Amino acid sequence: MSNPTAAIIIIGNEILSGRTQDINVQFIAKRLAALGIQLLEVRVIPDVPERIIGTVNEMRAAFDQVFTTGGIGPTHDDITSECVAAAFGVPWEIHGPTYELMLARIGAEQFNAARQRMATLPRGAVPITNEISLAPGFSIGNVHVMAGVPRIMQAMFVALEPSLPRGVPIAMRAVYGMGVLEGAIAAGLSAIQDRFSGIDLGSYPFRRDGVGGVAIVAKGTDVAALEAAVEEARRLIEAQGVPAVLGEPG
Amino acid sequence: MSNPTAAIIIIGNEILSGRTQDINVQFIAKRLAALGIQLLEVRVIPDVPERIIGTVNEMRAAFDQVFTTGGIGPTHDDITSECVAAAFGVPWEIHGPTYELMLARIGAEQFNAARQRMATLPRGAVPITNEISLAPGFSIGNVHVMAGVPRIMQAMFVALEPSLPRGVPIAMRAVYGMGVLEGAIAAGLSAIQDRFSGIDLGSYPFRRDGVGGVAIVAKGTDVAALEAAVEEARRLIEAQGVPAVLGEPG
Repeated sequence: MSNPTAAIIIIGNEILSGRTQDINVQFIAKRLAALGIQLLEVRVIPDVPERIIGTVNEMRAAFDQVFTTGGIGPTHDDITSECVAAAFGVPWEIHGPTYELMLARIGAEQFNAARQRMATLPRGAVPITNEISLAPGFSIGNVHVMAGVPRIMQAMFVALEPSLPRGVPIAMRAVYGMGVLEGAIAAGLSAIQDRFSGIDLGSYPFRRDGVGGVAIVAKGTDVAALEAAVEEARRLIEAQGVPAVLGEPG
Repeated sequence: MSNPTAAIIIIGNEILSGRTQDINVQFIAKRLAALGIQLLEVRVIPDVPERIIGTVNEMRAAFDQVFTTGGIGPTHDDITSECVAAAFGVPWEIHGPTYELMLARIGAEQFNAARQRMATLPRGAVPITNEISLAPGFSIGNVHVMAGVPRIMQAMFVALEPSLPRGVPIAMRAVYGMGVLEGAIAAGLSAIQDRFSGIDLGSYPFRRDGVGGVAIVAKGTDVAALEAAVEEARRLIEAQGVPAVLGEPG
């Protein structure tokens, strides 16, 4: 599959401490699947300069597109922007148009040093202006730097989306069998996977209203093969003597 | 700080596709903080053998404790256990006591090849028996392999907890200022951080009922310093002319 590849770097002590439940990965993952971009890794790292610089450089070399969230506000723990500049080996400097825009909106008196940091970008970065926050995210090379606050991150991702490369959208289908045990269908499912090597078949036990079951999830870019694999999975579940329910893979 | 360090490896295509919202990281993160173990990295990787083997080996060398979730069921996409055996360079073989236990509970007729895979462990692994699942997780060296299904993972973690090393518990306090803007307190907060170098001070904007504010979160093992830093943060917020609310950091 020649779809572009991607990784996400979540920069945030608040995720590693357990204080905050991340919800940015799922949002970005779904949007990337629709764009035909394969998300292949996520890393959550602390607000430590050498960790940010090293991880950005490792990931931008390994994947076609890298998305970061977190650490672009005005406070002392917001160090992503200067670390990305260091990773690219470029100066971190006032971005003229962003500075002028923020100055005009905030006013000279309130536009203090902390807020001016949000108008400071790696040289060569392109701002990701958006509907929610005056302070932009930015793209530099294949790295896209976004806020950690979900509604701001989402606005930045939506603003960024038109400029991203696209592949063949990754489609997903699911078939559910209530009361089915994974161990009973494992051999049959493995045989289906062998027949459809271009499709990614996953098996996920679940409980709903106290009753257990299995969700078989098929993923891939070839929709005809996907539908055929799901049809075989449906028959495999029905061979267990229970109804199979096709549904959204959510 | 000499607390033990830790990392989590989430093995799961379902997280990378956006189908499933991970909630295991937050559970483990909170428990580790209470144990005094510093969580320093999380990686989400796909169900691909070389990625699992490579990541396990990289992380177990870099951190004192490594926790994995996902990929230990009976189906073809459950490959964590054999990959961990490969990472440690040991055979992946039937674990006698687990096999006997599962055989007795499942019965010979139902104990098929797929289910027998769940009684197959890296040589030298110690099973993590638990209250929920008959099939165990396991520990080998400093790597702890757990299920991906949250309620099973949680039962495994609780069963594992008494055997983990402990450090000084990492305490957390938060002070909230409604209507406060980060940009207005950034300089003051940075000065507080400079005075309390052993405390990790974070600043997080939030919105509640349509009103914005800032949460200042302090984290550290020295409770006296923590309380003093929080008190300074409280005064910083009140200097903005709004009430500061101390609260749980959730």
